[in-house]
Amino acid sequence: MSSQRRPGPTQRRNVTEISESTRSVRWDSVLTEEPLEIRLGWPGHRPSSVAVVMRTPGHDFELASGFLLAEGAFPISRSPSTVAYCVDRTLNQEQRYNVVTVTLTHAPLRVPTNRATQVSSACGVCGATSLDEVLSPVAEPQRPMPAVPAERIAGAFRMLSAHQPLFDQTGASHAAAIYSGAGDLVVLREDVGRHNAVDKVLGARVLGTTTYGDDAMLCVSGRVGFDIMAKAVAGRIGLVAAVGAPSSLAVDLAQRAGITICGFVRSDRLVVYTAPERVTATVLPAVGVAGRC
Amino acid sequence: MSSQRRPGPTQRRNVTEISESTRSVRWDSVLTEEPLEIRLGWPGHRPSSVAVVMRTPGHDFELASGFLLAEGAFPISRSPSTVAYCVDRTLNQEQRYNVVTVTLTHAPLRVPTNRATQVSSACGVCGATSLDEVLSPVAEPQRPMPAVPAERIAGAFRMLSAHQPLFDQTGASHAAAIYSGAGDLVVLREDVGRHNAVDKVLGARVLGTTTYGDDAMLCVSGRVGFDIMAKAVAGRIGLVAAVGAPSSLAVDLAQRAGITICGFVRSDRLVVYTAPERVTATVLPAVGVAGRC
Repeated sequence: MSSQRRPGPTQRRNVTEISESTRSVRWDSVLTEEPLEIRLGWPGHRPSSVAVVMRTPGHDFELASGFLLAEGAFPISRSPSTVAYCVDRTLNQEQRYNVVTVTLTHAPLRVPTNRATQVSSACGVCGATSLDEVLSPVAEPQRPMPAVPAERIAGAFRMLSAHQPLFDQTGASHAAAIYSGAGDLVVLREDVGRHNAVDKVLGARVLGTTTYGDDAMLCVSGRVGFDIMAKAVAGRIGLVAAVGAPSSLAVDLAQRAGITICGFVRSDRLVVYTAPERVTATVLPAVGVAGRC
Repeated sequence: MSSQRRPGPTQRRNVTEISESTRSVRWDSVLTEEPLEIRLGWPGHRPSSVAVVMRTPGHDFELASGFLLAEGAFPISRSPSTVAYCVDRTLNQEQRYNVVTVTLTHAPLRVPTNRATQVSSACGVCGATSLDEVLSPVAEPQRPMPAVPAERIAGAFRMLSAHQPLFDQTGASHAAAIYSGAGDLVVLREDVGRHNAVDKVLGARVLGTTTYGDDAMLCVSGRVGFDIMAKAVAGRIGLVAAVGAPSSLAVDLAQRAGITICGFVRSDRLVVYTAPERVTATVLPAVGVAGRC
């Protein structure tokens, strides 16, 4: 792999498949996982490292931008001035594609730091303080969002499962996607980390690769924990839907932020945990949604 | 919930289930997610905060100990002297159960820090440096491990799926379990975070809650990324098996550490990514494994 300067999203590995009493050796695709160092700079401040995340290469600028948005470095209304791979001469070619520098137009609202260092030795932690920390930088309340038919959410997941090339090849990626209020697929990203997939779809909006309104839905292939919901708050998403279940703290955060969470989304049912008035049981003609695939 | 001083692993929430054109309101169980602050102390050093993790309450001492083991604070051969909830008077009751202090007998080999701050501004990151970082504190090479029949690994997963009470209630937890070389279930833990579930089973060994030898298998309900494999290295686990797929960097780390990874484990097949000589296709009588459930 040393001759491959920029790692692709999948790699070939020699594997042994054991089935009943037989064994066969073959080549298989595995999902690439590589560290990405994110550096943050702003006028008068030389870029410095703020995080290293393990990710699947691809859409790295979106990932870095979405990560910093979710960490509260800037609001969604204010895009970075530049996002670029590092050109530091001390880095070899492989490393250069693993370092992204985001430069803001203004000083950051918050510089991402190790959460542990934000905790003073006396104050302790609890769920309520975690919610306050996420909600405090969000000045505006979530805007009212029109009701969504349950069938449109189920249709979004049918599209999601049909557009995951990395999962089809490796069985190892998580997916996140944004759908417009009308149910159209706006952007879909896959990554070894579920958080990264969400950062990438939010970053696509930050960088103007795509646009979506406040009535957009965020759909994720896995479960919804606190961190995923915190990213939805930063991205001003009104409805989050998942194949899996939400955690208690994700439900509490959604409740306080006025976000609807749907879990266990299947073709014929779903469970709504918060703001259920936003999901209607009106059945749409199936072709109206699935036909867009 | 304010009257509940020590949060349990599940909580009740009012949900709306929408199915075809009907909707019903009912109570449902969601998995608890709460922050846990981990503090580290040693002789002559007052405990200080080194991390905050989001976890499902329960087995917190194991979690804190396994986390610090995996972060390289101490080797598996040297247990902490004490592990305790914080009794700081400034904390309210709820917060006290969210702060665990681990005190070591000696100064730590490494103090966990934000990964970003470990990266100097000039050196960059890449997969190879990540592997070096995990492997450097592990002085001894992995000991030889006897071959395991594929059927024993499949049998371990049958047991795993039969012993997940939190998953049965909430559909939201990940599971990790250690099996002895003979295929007996040694310890199983569930958590909202897959990393935490692994930390808890490793922590059980650190604290002497349970013992297992170098021929033990680590089985996880999800996928295997770099971080899970790094924990296996710290815990001196020789074989890691998963329902899902490993990432490229997990495979690379396993290769260098001499650990076998099995992925896509099903009742009748599995895929071996590294050290395949350690998994044999010999079929054991099914009752010999499943009968232990």
